[in-house]
Amino acid sequence: MNCFGVKFRVTTFGESHGNAIGCIIDGVPSGLEIDESYIQNEVDKRKPGLTKFATQRKESDKTQILSGVFNGLSTGVPIALVIFNENQKSNDYENIKSLFRPSHADFTYFKKYTIRDYRGGGRSSARETAARVAAGAIAKKLLEKFNIYVKSGVFAIGGIEAENLDFEYANTSEIFALDKTKEDQQKEAILRVKKLGDSIGGCVFVKVANAPAGLGEPLYNKLDAALAAALMGINGVKAVEIGEGVNVSRLRGSQNNDQMDENSFLSNHAGGILGGISTGEDINLKVHFKPTPSIFLEQQTQNEQNESVKFNLKGRHDPCIAIRGSIVANAMVSLVLADMLLLNASSTLENLQKIYGK
Amino acid sequence: MNCFGVKFRVTTFGESHGNAIGCIIDGVPSGLEIDESYIQNEVDKRKPGLTKFATQRKESDKTQILSGVFNGLSTGVPIALVIFNENQKSNDYENIKSLFRPSHADFTYFKKYTIRDYRGGGRSSARETAARVAAGAIAKKLLEKFNIYVKSGVFAIGGIEAENLDFEYANTSEIFALDKTKEDQQKEAILRVKKLGDSIGGCVFVKVANAPAGLGEPLYNKLDAALAAALMGINGVKAVEIGEGVNVSRLRGSQNNDQMDENSFLSNHAGGILGGISTGEDINLKVHFKPTPSIFLEQQTQNEQNESVKFNLKGRHDPCIAIRGSIVANAMVSLVLADMLLLNASSTLENLQKIYGK
Amino acid sequence: MNCFGVKFRVTTFGESHGNAIGCIIDGVPSGLEIDESYIQNEVDKRKPGLTKFATQRKESDKTQILSGVFNGLSTGVPIALVIFNENQKSNDYENIKSLFRPSHADFTYFKKYTIRDYRGGGRSSARETAARVAAGAIAKKLLEKFNIYVKSGVFAIGGIEAENLDFEYANTSEIFALDKTKEDQQKEAILRVKKLGDSIGGCVFVKVANAPAGLGEPLYNKLDAALAAALMGINGVKAVEIGEGVNVSRLRGSQNNDQMDENSFLSNHAGGILGGISTGEDINLKVHFKPTPSIFLEQQTQNEQNESVKFNLKGRHDPCIAIRGSIVANAMVSLVLADMLLLNASSTLENLQKIYGK
Amino acid sequence: MNCFGVKFRVTTFGESHGNAIGCIIDGVPSGLEIDESYIQNEVDKRKPGLTKFATQRKESDKTQILSGVFNGLSTGVPIALVIFNENQKSNDYENIKSLFRPSHADFTYFKKYTIRDYRGGGRSSARETAARVAAGAIAKKLLEKFNIYVKSGVFAIGGIEAENLDFEYANTSEIFALDKTKEDQQKEAILRVKKLGDSIGGCVFVKVANAPAGLGEPLYNKLDAALAAALMGINGVKAVEIGEGVNVSRLRGSQNNDQMDENSFLSNHAGGILGGISTGEDINLKVHFKPTPSIFLEQQTQNEQNESVKFNLKGRHDPCIAIRGSIVANAMVSLVLADMLLLNASSTLENLQKIYGK
Repeated sequence: MNCFGVKFRVTTFGESHGNAIGCIIDGVPSGLEIDESYIQNEVDKRKPGLTKFATQRKESDKTQILSGVFNGLSTGVPIALVIFNENQKSNDYENIKSLFRPSHADFTYFKKYTIRDYRGGGRSSARETAARVAAGAIAKKLLEKFNIYVKSGVFAIGGIEAENLDFEYANTSEIFALDKTKEDQQKEAILRVKKLGDSIGGCVFVKVANAPAGLGEPLYNKLDAALAAALMGINGVKAVEIGEGVNVSRLRGSQNNDQMDENSFLSNHAGGILGGISTGEDINLKVHFKPTPSIFLEQQTQNEQNESVKFNLKGRHDPCIAIRGSIVANAMVSLVLADMLLLNASSTLENLQKIYGK
Repeated sequence: MNCFGVKFRVTTFGESHGNAIGCIIDGVPSGLEIDESYIQNEVDKRKPGLTKFATQRKESDKTQILSGVFNGLSTGVPIALVIFNENQKSNDYENIKSLFRPSHADFTYFKKYTIRDYRGGGRSSARETAARVAAGAIAKKLLEKFNIYVKSGVFAIGGIEAENLDFEYANTSEIFALDKTKEDQQKEAILRVKKLGDSIGGCVFVKVANAPAGLGEPLYNKLDAALAAALMGINGVKAVEIGEGVNVSRLRGSQNNDQMDENSFLSNHAGGILGGISTGEDINLKVHFKPTPSIFLEQQTQNEQNESVKFNLKGRHDPCIAIRGSIVANAMVSLVLADMLLLNASSTLENLQKIYGK
Repeated sequence: MNCFGVKFRVTTFGESHGNAIGCIIDGVPSGLEIDESYIQNEVDKRKPGLTKFATQRKESDKTQILSGVFNGLSTGVPIALVIFNENQKSNDYENIKSLFRPSHADFTYFKKYTIRDYRGGGRSSARETAARVAAGAIAKKLLEKFNIYVKSGVFAIGGIEAENLDFEYANTSEIFALDKTKEDQQKEAILRVKKLGDSIGGCVFVKVANAPAGLGEPLYNKLDAALAAALMGINGVKAVEIGEGVNVSRLRGSQNNDQMDENSFLSNHAGGILGGISTGEDINLKVHFKPTPSIFLEQQTQNEQNESVKFNLKGRHDPCIAIRGSIVANAMVSLVLADMLLLNASSTLENLQKIYGK
Repeated sequence: MNCFGVKFRVTTFGESHGNAIGCIIDGVPSGLEIDESYIQNEVDKRKPGLTKFATQRKESDKTQILSGVFNGLSTGVPIALVIFNENQKSNDYENIKSLFRPSHADFTYFKKYTIRDYRGGGRSSARETAARVAAGAIAKKLLEKFNIYVKSGVFAIGGIEAENLDFEYANTSEIFALDKTKEDQQKEAILRVKKLGDSIGGCVFVKVANAPAGLGEPLYNKLDAALAAALMGINGVKAVEIGEGVNVSRLRGSQNNDQMDENSFLSNHAGGILGGISTGEDINLKVHFKPTPSIFLEQQTQNEQNESVKFNLKGRHDPCIAIRGSIVANAMVSLVLADMLLLNASSTLENLQKIYGK
């Protein structure tokens, strides 16, 4: 089950310390300009080792296209992308190879498969998300053809929340902060916990602009359901909100309803989705990332022999996964939207007549 | 795309005011006792018309088994269930047939399909969820064979939150309240808005007890991703939280990590899921339902001719969809767990050897 | 796994002697005229009890639409169809309830599920194919919008082969014979074996006219692969041929290649499919049905207690399943083509631009 | 749609003259010994350039494992395999870049995608099948754990048919001939047409030994349907037969039925499958390959500008694709069986109880 999407379908492979990670993207329509540098540019955004706010693992994350592109255009056949791992320090994991790091997937992978690649978390490592970002770049390219833009940034760090959302600014910020006026506080919060050997949680905001009304395959591949799955499936995410989000459970209908005039909606509590289908308004999403489980404080845990052990972690880790997570969230949302765009193509007889004539 | 699940797969059909609603459940292992009255019992929990906290539409919701059960046991072939509609009052919808009720799916279905069954919201009506509850009953039956129990109840209404979670009590409460000491306040909040012609939001808690460690198909049919999709896809849900939920984005790793001793986890911030796989701890979920969009206050909206119109709703509606939504959430979680149980059966060579011998 | 198709997806349910059989058809584009009498007309073609060449079981096969159609048009939501069983004579099966009829699925269902509905073969009965024909009627309706016609008839009975293919004539023939000049011989062959208590095999020809070039999702949902699965999955089918079929293994490239001039192909050995994609030429298929396994001669078999037993069958059976099988084959091919038509809608960026503008 | 299988799922990528071909195999249970040399051994069987009966293209077909294997064992996560292309002679295709080779997929890919990688047929090249063989090697490894063996060989060339099937011998034959006494005639037939610049068709036999009864997911992922799709989807295949195959349409029930005694079936006309489920007998399949469309005789065709042109092919081509096709057919059958083995694991409550306890 290492794939997602129905028509625009991505299958990924790879472990943190294996030979390579990568993906196959199936269902890309033919005729799309695929620019290797454009993909690289997206991948580079989540590349490790760039700032003091991210892990110091150094990877060039050089992304190669193995198939599916000819003379600069997609041909309709699968596009395979590969990123070879370069900076594995597997020795960092020798001392924890038989124990389960708290709040990591070590324990659950072991329970499920009885065997596990303990090096860097193996498949459960966030390193795998580089493949998602690479695939997401192609989705974004497709969406842009239809003027659809997926924007994202860091909304909150440790409870310090943005008040204004400036997605342009986020692109230039070391921590992808949405609100310049909060950025310093947010950075400080990160560095404070980092110094303590601790980590911190954060919240990411994703906005889709210009998605046409009508996207989403109701019951049960609804747009909101698909987005929730795509986002909750990112490493460390524990909550997903759409539009008003958790706040809806406190509101009255008269407060939450989005009335309309002849032109448009007068508010957007719905976050751009009604009945699982896009309304044409902005799609607004909040994604809550837990603090990195890899901390440098002594912790107690269990090992494979069912003994209680105390241990101190080594290795290189992000103090706040929400930061690079914002790039991954952007990619996942892009992939969902691209899939919905394709799926919707056959929703009406009229659409089919546009393609096949009458 | 009206199906969900991979091996334990449910496909539903039906509209609010059509002839019938129902479902086909595929992948039920042979040999499971299927008791029509047990299914009916689950369906009756979300039946309309029972209390003043629910819509006054009267439906017997008599659920018939059309196939797949022989001599009281599942035979491994598809189980079809059907519920004929009885109490359609389609005339209630004549005055709104060409306009889009605010925060309903009227607008988006029209945009997607250009044609729509406007009677009671057609397919987008919560009436369809009766089919999910019927299917969920079979999932629950399967789970109980393995001592897995899915429990649910109303956690909050309009911000009035439970402090203790008593799932036994919830079963007996008219509003499925989890906390008896908050129930009166919660009821009062509902009746207050109801009297005003308004509605109110609520939050549902779902707990899975005794799920074995190892369930979930990581990347990308993770347990958390699948649960998020299943829950976000319920009518009116705008946020899903697992374990600490939105709160994780405020915590430090040292606060949020679940350490272990030789026996078990020492806390459960993770809500029973790590790396998309169950840990063996309770799975804890919060689901936020928006206030019913159907309110009886005058509202402004658009019609199919792109004109701005004011209108007053008629019809019979729940003042708080979270109440009956708690039954639907329970069913959806049960369906996800059943699917994961089946999918996991082939996760190791050892499992296969237990079945096929060596 | 009781569904097929990706976008135009059919899920069926029901057993020979259960309450009902039926299906859910998902993915029908909105705006298609759905005429109940048109569906009934297709279903009636394979209805039992009409001639001496078919089983004498009497079923009205009245097909009801339960959902998905409003004001005579598909609305884009699932269309559920149900046919209640009426003429079950389950007593006919009492004497064989614990034995495995030779060349029936009794043995394999028992091995797979350990439990089985022995009445009339349960789910493995060809009765289930009525649901496929009902679904196929909707597919045909869609295809006709694009001038695509799926035609079929009986090509051979017991080795007596048609020399001319007249699909118009086949529609009027009691045995759906394609060649009027062979019909009497073919009928005679059937009646001869019937009198002996035996049965006979047959071959069905299906032709798709006017399918546009470009249908088929190569690697691995090729048009030919999907057709082969759809046809081989019909009860009693043991071989599927496309174009030259088995004969290709005897030919040279210079004999089998289809050259072209500026207008079209100069021959059609390929049977309308190259590389898994339609060429625009007629799609030609041959489907080989085994003789009905239900014969009235004494046979030896095994029972559930692993004893060898001799037995004589009772019940009502077709002497030649290819006859009604030709209607089922037609439906299955129609369903595949409808799915491919929908899937292909997003194959090029140009197609998407026709739908979404820009 | 470049994947097949449900639980044991393979997704392939790559074109004849692109950078690489390869695949991701998802769903391999953890704990299986994965031996790179074992995979290579299978891949080498269909490697080009080995004999005068195959194309002279020289490829080492070195297969690398990129993920999913740790310490020699599968870990349950996706196994990615890659084969870099080495001996592309794209210049061979310059003169045909704008024309459609007769009976090739050039025309249909162009019609579907409007763009195509004309070099060596791009994605439609049989070169892609190396990835299937690599994936098939892992499936075979799994099957062997359960004593299931998939055997294959060349049954007929140009109508010269084997009379005895010796699968051991086939492994040692340059043309994988099943019958040593026919091998010389078959070779001669190939060399005769090769000398003329022509090609020849052939028929491959695949036998599965020791498949347990109960495999196959009836309606509609039947074992026979899945095998038919897998085999018909191989380049150049135009007919698939199971058991008696096309011959069934000539037989009577009394001739074709497989009676049983207390131990087993007394015959195997069914070819090991009844009702879409394995019987436990040998599964017997015949696969008919057309003659290679690439011949060196002058042919007439159309070009992209819709003109009629005559042309003479260059390049390196197999005179008979059935030979290497027998290895591909073997792989495809192995993949289907592995998938069915996994899918069947949850078919009964009893199976689940073996895994999860009671």
